[in-house]
Amino acid sequence: MRGWSAVPAGGGGPLAEVGDSPRTDLAVEAVERPHRVEGIDVEEGHEGEVAVTRVRVRSDEAERVVGKPRGTYVTLDAPGLLRRDTMVQEQVARALARELGALLPLDADSHVFVVGLGNWNATPDALGPRVVGEILVTRHLADQVPENLAGQVRRVSALAPGVLGLTGIETGEIIRGIVARIKPDAVVVVDALASRSVERLGRTIQVADSGIQPGSGVGNHRSGIDAQTIGVPVVAVGVPTVVHAATIAADTIDLLAAELDGQPAYAGLRLLHGDDKRQLIARVLAPAVGDLMVTPKEIDLLLDDLSSVVAAGVNAALHPKVAAQESLL
Amino acid sequence: MRGWSAVPAGGGGPLAEVGDSPRTDLAVEAVERPHRVEGIDVEEGHEGEVAVTRVRVRSDEAERVVGKPRGTYVTLDAPGLLRRDTMVQEQVARALARELGALLPLDADSHVFVVGLGNWNATPDALGPRVVGEILVTRHLADQVPENLAGQVRRVSALAPGVLGLTGIETGEIIRGIVARIKPDAVVVVDALASRSVERLGRTIQVADSGIQPGSGVGNHRSGIDAQTIGVPVVAVGVPTVVHAATIAADTIDLLAAELDGQPAYAGLRLLHGDDKRQLIARVLAPAVGDLMVTPKEIDLLLDDLSSVVAAGVNAALHPKVAAQESLL
Amino acid sequence: MRGWSAVPAGGGGPLAEVGDSPRTDLAVEAVERPHRVEGIDVEEGHEGEVAVTRVRVRSDEAERVVGKPRGTYVTLDAPGLLRRDTMVQEQVARALARELGALLPLDADSHVFVVGLGNWNATPDALGPRVVGEILVTRHLADQVPENLAGQVRRVSALAPGVLGLTGIETGEIIRGIVARIKPDAVVVVDALASRSVERLGRTIQVADSGIQPGSGVGNHRSGIDAQTIGVPVVAVGVPTVVHAATIAADTIDLLAAELDGQPAYAGLRLLHGDDKRQLIARVLAPAVGDLMVTPKEIDLLLDDLSSVVAAGVNAALHPKVAAQESLL
Amino acid sequence: MRGWSAVPAGGGGPLAEVGDSPRTDLAVEAVERPHRVEGIDVEEGHEGEVAVTRVRVRSDEAERVVGKPRGTYVTLDAPGLLRRDTMVQEQVARALARELGALLPLDADSHVFVVGLGNWNATPDALGPRVVGEILVTRHLADQVPENLAGQVRRVSALAPGVLGLTGIETGEIIRGIVARIKPDAVVVVDALASRSVERLGRTIQVADSGIQPGSGVGNHRSGIDAQTIGVPVVAVGVPTVVHAATIAADTIDLLAAELDGQPAYAGLRLLHGDDKRQLIARVLAPAVGDLMVTPKEIDLLLDDLSSVVAAGVNAALHPKVAAQESLL
Repeated sequence: MRGWSAVPAGGGGPLAEVGDSPRTDLAVEAVERPHRVEGIDVEEGHEGEVAVTRVRVRSDEAERVVGKPRGTYVTLDAPGLLRRDTMVQEQVARALARELGALLPLDADSHVFVVGLGNWNATPDALGPRVVGEILVTRHLADQVPENLAGQVRRVSALAPGVLGLTGIETGEIIRGIVARIKPDAVVVVDALASRSVERLGRTIQVADSGIQPGSGVGNHRSGIDAQTIGVPVVAVGVPTVVHAATIAADTIDLLAAELDGQPAYAGLRLLHGDDKRQLIARVLAPAVGDLMVTPKEIDLLLDDLSSVVAAGVNAALHPKVAAQESLL
Repeated sequence: MRGWSAVPAGGGGPLAEVGDSPRTDLAVEAVERPHRVEGIDVEEGHEGEVAVTRVRVRSDEAERVVGKPRGTYVTLDAPGLLRRDTMVQEQVARALARELGALLPLDADSHVFVVGLGNWNATPDALGPRVVGEILVTRHLADQVPENLAGQVRRVSALAPGVLGLTGIETGEIIRGIVARIKPDAVVVVDALASRSVERLGRTIQVADSGIQPGSGVGNHRSGIDAQTIGVPVVAVGVPTVVHAATIAADTIDLLAAELDGQPAYAGLRLLHGDDKRQLIARVLAPAVGDLMVTPKEIDLLLDDLSSVVAAGVNAALHPKVAAQESLL
Repeated sequence: MRGWSAVPAGGGGPLAEVGDSPRTDLAVEAVERPHRVEGIDVEEGHEGEVAVTRVRVRSDEAERVVGKPRGTYVTLDAPGLLRRDTMVQEQVARALARELGALLPLDADSHVFVVGLGNWNATPDALGPRVVGEILVTRHLADQVPENLAGQVRRVSALAPGVLGLTGIETGEIIRGIVARIKPDAVVVVDALASRSVERLGRTIQVADSGIQPGSGVGNHRSGIDAQTIGVPVVAVGVPTVVHAATIAADTIDLLAAELDGQPAYAGLRLLHGDDKRQLIARVLAPAVGDLMVTPKEIDLLLDDLSSVVAAGVNAALHPKVAAQESLL
Repeated sequence: MRGWSAVPAGGGGPLAEVGDSPRTDLAVEAVERPHRVEGIDVEEGHEGEVAVTRVRVRSDEAERVVGKPRGTYVTLDAPGLLRRDTMVQEQVARALARELGALLPLDADSHVFVVGLGNWNATPDALGPRVVGEILVTRHLADQVPENLAGQVRRVSALAPGVLGLTGIETGEIIRGIVARIKPDAVVVVDALASRSVERLGRTIQVADSGIQPGSGVGNHRSGIDAQTIGVPVVAVGVPTVVHAATIAADTIDLLAAELDGQPAYAGLRLLHGDDKRQLIARVLAPAVGDLMVTPKEIDLLLDDLSSVVAAGVNAALHPKVAAQESLL
C-alpha cells in the first residue's frame, strides 16, 4: 500500500514526467537575453556580496515574453552561499527581509499567514515546510508574549499543508479555507522552484508579489495561489533547488555553438535555438532523460542552509524589533 | 529565536506543567473500579488476542462519573503488541477497521477526511502525523485511480496540521476551515493520549464517536473537535503513549496498601484514596515531579509499530476492497 | 525481519526488562545522603547558575559505597537548562569545557578520539551519536585546515558505532580495534545515563575520568570502556535522560514518610528504607511497571538542547583557540 | 562552527568539485560499446524482469579498458523498480541474494561483516547506512537466538562508520581495525555509486568480488577496500544514485550526432568522441556545471526502495533458511 499511496506524493515515482512544468520559475532567467519589450523594467544593483535584480512586468506583451503575470520579481543572487559563508548568509537574510517588507503591505498590528508549500518527504521540495518550522509564530500567544517582546511582535501564523499527493486536497483549497476563518492581512508562501540553470541552484532567492502560478514550483501546483484566488495580498518567496536535465543539454548546445563558432562542420549548432532546439532536444533526449528533474547531490546540506537563511529573512521582515533585539540575523 | 519559538511547540519546555490535563483520556480507565451508575453500559469481549471493551455513556450522571461526553468508547487491548508480534498486529488492525466501520456512517461514495493531531517534533505526540503519512489518500485521483482499484476506493483526504505552538492556529479552526471547503461526509481524528496506567502504553487503542475534548491528547487541545463543532460526524482514534509521573506514585500507594493490608503501622495507606490521595500526592510530589508526563524509553520503536497498526486499520476501514486485494493488513 | 532484528536494538522491545541496570549512573546521587566514608571526598561550588560537585572515590570502601570505581566524578547541574536559557547553556558548555580539560591529559598536538555511545533510533539513548555529529573533526584535514585555524586545532577524530543490537559487536571491541590503528592520546566517550531522580533529567552533566562501566548507560554496555580496557586515558561525559519508574515509586514513599511523619497510622513508612524498600517496591510494582524506564515526553526537544550544549563544551575543550575565535560557545 | 565542520562531511560544500572521480563506477558501462579485448568476458541473461550481465575482467589490458581491477562484476537491471512494482522488487532481491551467494565463500558457520559506506546526512550517499539499518544482525545473540531460528542463522555483524569528513578516519582504517578484532570470514560493503547514464539511476545494482576502489562511490574513498587491504574476501554491492552533469551533456551530443547524422552542418558532431569530446565538454561546461553531480529530485523515495531491496537481498544471502521461513523477500 505504501508503495502505491506514495506515488502521488513522489509526483509519479522516481523518474516522474513533470510534463507541463515550465523550464524556469525565475522571471530573471526569462529576461536574461537582451530584450526591448514594452512593459518590462529591469533594475540591477549590488549590496555587499548580494546581486539584486528587480524585474517589473507591466503589460500583456511583457507577461507573454516573461511567461509570468504582472508583478514585481526581485532576485537575490549570492555565490557566497555556496561557500556556506555565514557573513553572506546574513547579508542575504537582511536583503530578503527588506525586499519582503517592501512588497508586503504591513502595519504594526497586521496578521500574516506564512504557508510553506512542498513535500517534506522529498528533500528538494522540502524548503517550504522546513522554513515554516523555523518561523516565529505568535498569533496564539496574545498577551502571553514574553515581556521583553510585548508589543514588538506582529501576529504571525504558519502552516505546511503538504502536497496534493499527501492530502488529496489542492493546496489552494486548504489555504482559502483557513484564510476564510483566520482572516490574515497578507499571506507569504514559501516554495522550492525549478531553474533553467544549474548555476543558480543554492544561491538564488526570488521574491514576487504575484504569488504562485499553476505548474510552478518543484511540486507543480495545479491552481494559482495569489491575491485574486486567496483574497488578500500574497507574496511568494522561492528558491531554485532543481533543474530539468534537458536544460543541461540545451545549455551544452549553446555553449558548444559559441565555442565552435565559425567551424562549418558545426554551423548547424548555431541554427538551433528557441523552441526548435527545445523540441529537438525533447525528441532526442526523451527516451534517455524524459522530463527528469535533477538536484545537486549535496541537496540535504544545501537545503539546511537555505531554509535557515529564508526563515531568518521572513522572521526579520515580520518581527523587525525582535530581529534587532534577538539578532535573528 | 529557535529557543523561544520552540517553547510552545514543546508544550512549555522540557519539564512543562501540563496543568489542567486529565489523569486519563481513556473511558475504560474511568470505569475500571466497580460502578453501578445509571447510563453507563460496559460490554467486554475477546477476539483472538485482542480484548475488546465497549463503554456507552448515556446520561448526565454517566458523563460526570466517566468524565467524558455521551458516546460510545471502544477499547482494544493487546499485550502481544509489546512483543511486536505481527500476527497480533494484524488482529488489532482488523479489529480497529471493524470498530471504526461500525462507528462511521459510510456508504460507497462517502468522502472521509482523516486528521492527524499532534506534534511531529515530539515523538510521544507524533502518532497522528505518522498515521496520516501512511493513509491511502484518493480524493485527488478521481479517474486516475489505477484500473485494479477503480470503483473500489472511497474518496479519502488527509492532513496533519501540527499543534497550536507550531501554527498559531487552533487545530479546530484549521479543520473547520478546510471542512467548510471540501465538505467531507465524516472526519476521523487520530491522536496520542495520556493513560492512567503504564500498563496500557503501547498496547491499547481507543475508538470513540464523541470526537476529541478540550484538554485531552498529549498536546492538550484548547477546543473540542466533534460533530457539534465540526458539523459532520467525528470519530476519534486514540493511542495512549504517555502517563503522568504522579499516577505511578498513586499506583504505588494503592499497591503498597493492598500488600501491607492488616499491618497497623501502614493502616493509614488504606485510608488514602480518591481525591484525598491525589491531592496529597500532588502536594508532596509537586516539587519533585510537578506535572511531569513520561513515556517509555523505547517510545520511538513503539510509535513506529503503533502508527503502522493504526494506519492499516484506518485504511482497511475506508477502503475495504483494497484491503482485501492488496492485503493492507 | 525488521521487527525481530530491531528488538535487541530497542533493548528488548517496547517495555524491556532492564534487569541488572543500576538505579543510578550518577556518582553524586550515591553520596547524596550524609556519609562519613574514608576515601570519599565531596566538594561543592557554584559558578553562575551552574552548581559544580566534585566527588573523588579513593578507596575500596568508597568504591563499594558509591558503586563506582576509583576516580573523579564532576557533576554540573543547572535548572536553567530546562528554561532553554541560552545564557545558562553557554555557562554550562564553558564549565564542561573546563572540567573536561582538567581531566584530559592534553598538549597542543594531542590526538583525541571522541566516541558517541548509544542508539540513534531511540531518542533517549541518542545523545552520544548526536553529539558526535556536531564535533569539530580535524584529524583528516592535516594541512588543509583553513588558514585562520592553522596550528590552532588539535587532531580530533570521532565515531558513533551504534549499540550491540545494531552491530552485533561490543562497543568496546569496536573502540579497541580502531584505537589500535589510529593510536589516539585519549578517548572521550559521550553517553546517555539513567538517573535516580526525575529532577536531574535534562539539567545535569557528569564528567568522569573512570570511563564507562558495564551495565551503565541507557543502552547498558556489557563491557567496560576505560583506560585499562582501551589502553589510553578515557574520560566519560554523561547526561541523564531516563529514570526507572520504580525510583519514582521509591521517591513517593520517602516523600510521604516525611510528610506524614509522626502519624502512627503511617509509622511503617519510616521503617521502609534502603534495600528493604527497594525489594518491597520491586515485588509490589513488578507486575505493573516491571523494570520500565521512562523519559519526559519532551525528550526530543530536551535532547536537541543537551546535544548542542555537550558538543559545544567538548569542541571548546579540544579546540580552545577556535572556541575563542569562532565563538563555539 | 557547524558550518565549517560540516564542510568536509558534505564533501566540500553544496557544489563540491568531485575532481578525480571516475565518470562511472559500473563495469557494465565501460564495456557497453563493442569491444574485442582479450580478457574481458561478457555474459548476458534475463530472469523475470531482471536483466543480468556478468563482466569478467581477466587481464591487464582488460583492467585498462574497463578501468577496474580483475574480478567478476554482475549487474542487475530492472526498469520495473522505477514503477515501485513489489513483484519486481522481490525478483531483484532474490537475484541479488543468489549472485551475492555465488561470489561469497560461505559455509554454515561463517561470520560475515556487513559495512555500509557513505554519509547518512546526504541522501544520495546514504544507501550503505540505510541498508545496514535493515540487516539481520546475529553475531551477539549466540544461543539467545529465538528457537525457531536456532542453527538457521549465520553470524552476521554490521557497521555504518560514516565518511571521512564525519570521522576524520579513513573508512578503510576503521574496517581494518575492527576486522583485526572480530576476524570475520568475509566482508560485504554496500555503497552508493556514480553512473555514466541517468537511465540506470534507481534500477541497477552491481555486485563485484573486487571490493571498492579509491575514488569510487558517491563519497569518493581515498583508499581501496578489498581482499588485499582488508585480508579477507570483500564483495561490494553498489547502486548508482548520482550522475555527472557533464555526462548528460556528453549523452546529448551523442544523441544529436546520431539524430542529425548525414546533415553536413552537423558533421562535426560525429567527429567528437571519446576523450576529445570529454575534454571539449569539460572545458566548455566547466564554468557552468563544473564537476557537478546530480541526482533525481525523487531521490528520497528512490533510496527508500533501493535500501529495502538491497537489505532483503543481503539478508537472504546470509540467512537463507530465515529467508525461506520468514519471507524476508
